[in-house]
Amino acid sequence: MVIRYELQAECDGARAGLLHTPHGTFKTPMFMPVGTQATVKTLTPEELYAMGAQIILSNTYHLFLRPGEELIRQAGGLHAFMHWQQPILTDSGGFQVFSLGQMRKITEDGVTFRSHLDGSRKFLSPEVSMDVQMALNSDIAMAFDECIPYPSDYDYTSQSTARTSRWAQRCLQHHHSPTQGLFGIVQGGMYKDLRARSCAELVAMDFDGYGIGGLSVGEEKSLMYDILEYTVPLLPKHKARYLMGVGTPDCLLEGVARGVDMFDCVYPTRVARNGMAMTKTGRLTVRNAKYAADFVPIEENCDCYTCQNYTRAYIRHLFKAEELLAYRLVSIHNLHFLLHFMRDLRQSIVDGTFREFCRQFRRVYRDR
Amino acid sequence: MVIRYELQAECDGARAGLLHTPHGTFKTPMFMPVGTQATVKTLTPEELYAMGAQIILSNTYHLFLRPGEELIRQAGGLHAFMHWQQPILTDSGGFQVFSLGQMRKITEDGVTFRSHLDGSRKFLSPEVSMDVQMALNSDIAMAFDECIPYPSDYDYTSQSTARTSRWAQRCLQHHHSPTQGLFGIVQGGMYKDLRARSCAELVAMDFDGYGIGGLSVGEEKSLMYDILEYTVPLLPKHKARYLMGVGTPDCLLEGVARGVDMFDCVYPTRVARNGMAMTKTGRLTVRNAKYAADFVPIEENCDCYTCQNYTRAYIRHLFKAEELLAYRLVSIHNLHFLLHFMRDLRQSIVDGTFREFCRQFRRVYRDR
Repeated sequence: MVIRYELQAECDGARAGLLHTPHGTFKTPMFMPVGTQATVKTLTPEELYAMGAQIILSNTYHLFLRPGEELIRQAGGLHAFMHWQQPILTDSGGFQVFSLGQMRKITEDGVTFRSHLDGSRKFLSPEVSMDVQMALNSDIAMAFDECIPYPSDYDYTSQSTARTSRWAQRCLQHHHSPTQGLFGIVQGGMYKDLRARSCAELVAMDFDGYGIGGLSVGEEKSLMYDILEYTVPLLPKHKARYLMGVGTPDCLLEGVARGVDMFDCVYPTRVARNGMAMTKTGRLTVRNAKYAADFVPIEENCDCYTCQNYTRAYIRHLFKAEELLAYRLVSIHNLHFLLHFMRDLRQSIVDGTFREFCRQFRRVYRDR
Repeated sequence: MVIRYELQAECDGARAGLLHTPHGTFKTPMFMPVGTQATVKTLTPEELYAMGAQIILSNTYHLFLRPGEELIRQAGGLHAFMHWQQPILTDSGGFQVFSLGQMRKITEDGVTFRSHLDGSRKFLSPEVSMDVQMALNSDIAMAFDECIPYPSDYDYTSQSTARTSRWAQRCLQHHHSPTQGLFGIVQGGMYKDLRARSCAELVAMDFDGYGIGGLSVGEEKSLMYDILEYTVPLLPKHKARYLMGVGTPDCLLEGVARGVDMFDCVYPTRVARNGMAMTKTGRLTVRNAKYAADFVPIEENCDCYTCQNYTRAYIRHLFKAEELLAYRLVSIHNLHFLLHFMRDLRQSIVDGTFREFCRQFRRVYRDR
């Protein structure tokens, strides 16, 4: 097995483990920073590693269009190209393609779409996605799926979920790489029977791990947690479970509480570039005028590079002056915050104090 | 004396020395990276220090307008505000104000102008410039001068240069800081007799060092070198000489050859953000299509962070994708290149091989 999940501890539904990959082992539960275009925006790999990132995600759709997977293959794969020697997970391109709306057309074969860069006609299918991801040589490839929009009716969701299963089978047949694992993606929208069918079909195919897709797409959080709580127990215990596109502390905690091992989201880096810092008590919009003369760090007692060396007043100045260092400093803080949040969460599972950790978190955190 | 120049070696007109300041000593000749808005664009102080930057320059005009000198005073001065504990030189604001063209009006008292940020009416004078720079608490303040445009006729140049001398006197009278030195700025345009008069008047005032202003403003390089060669010997040997606004390797070398100790320019960081890398043989436009599949560093044998870890192909991809890491990586390379160029130049003065260093440089460097 290229990818192997090792369970280490369980506590109140949450679990701590290790995921072994060709580029090394990382601890779960883990948050994966997103490096869409072969770079986690503004940061170097050394900075990511120093703040505790052990695996990053990169986007097949973007790299397929630019610079193209052949160039990255020539460079020696994505790790060498972007100078990141730890594990990488690539998504399948499906999510981005389906987000294009009117610019794409779905058939059983795959999806024809127009590039957002130059409008040129492109085609992605299970086979093409596998070829691209094998060229990138990420540690974990994702099967090509349709992420169903919310809300969607039962009939569409049912048809789409069935097609995602057929596509998953084609991915499995086409994928052949001794240095890359392949995860299937569970769909089924907000319908539990369709989630159950999706799980059953995918689990029967025996993927190296399972993504849970089609959540955090606009539904209420309570609905997301409910679907998640229903879905996770249908997945095999000896494989990793990855909740796709989730990145706020409350959602990470609730995901971990329901047995999820991996998460990714552009949230911490995207809001950072808008001047929004993540803290234990919720978001802090450091670019606001009220911080203009506030000579304390973003968060007291935070040991990230940014909080150790800079004040809110300085960071706000950088935002007002549109200085690139602003985006960098808050990206460092936010990723550090989230990665250390996950580390603490994991430790509480190992220590058997997860329930208490959750209680304390819910007491102070405000989803502003 | 707050600022003290210590001569260490001379060789064929060039000199190596030390400049002692309140925030430490730096080696001359030295290039000062520019941190216009209290940040050297895209970089952290640690990165600057690691690549050999020993002093940086920041701009009084920009900080006066935003965030305002009072905020920086409250922060504990510019060093604390921006987290840079090495020496800082601030310019006087004159250069930027005079660049505003129609938006400013000069009188004997000072300059009234409109802020480029919000159009509000502002006033800078010798006294205001000193007050602002004392609030910033840079190690070296510059006297408020007029940087005369090129070309300018003899009469205007003569009147302006005389006014710059009167303003220099007012700066000296108003300046009072036990933790900040003050440099005068020689003007005189391209007229040697006016340069001589400016030097005589300023030297009589006994500043802590001397800027040579009004060069590199559009004139031929040969004319700049000629005026420089004429001017430097008129300045005292026991004070630092600073050629303002110069930052290409050929100009630095010719400046050093004529006895200059300090330089500053936005050039290395500005061209970096346009995808232009500085190398021993001239500029390399790394964003050009011909580097798309070029899997070698910007410059062979360069030991900067960028060249040690990234290829031209990757950096070009980052530029095409408009990723902020692109600006950062080339800024690191360019400043590293220039700071190490200055270090090597200094060593050749100490070793007595400066003439040979110049010959080798001129043989391979092309001003493309």
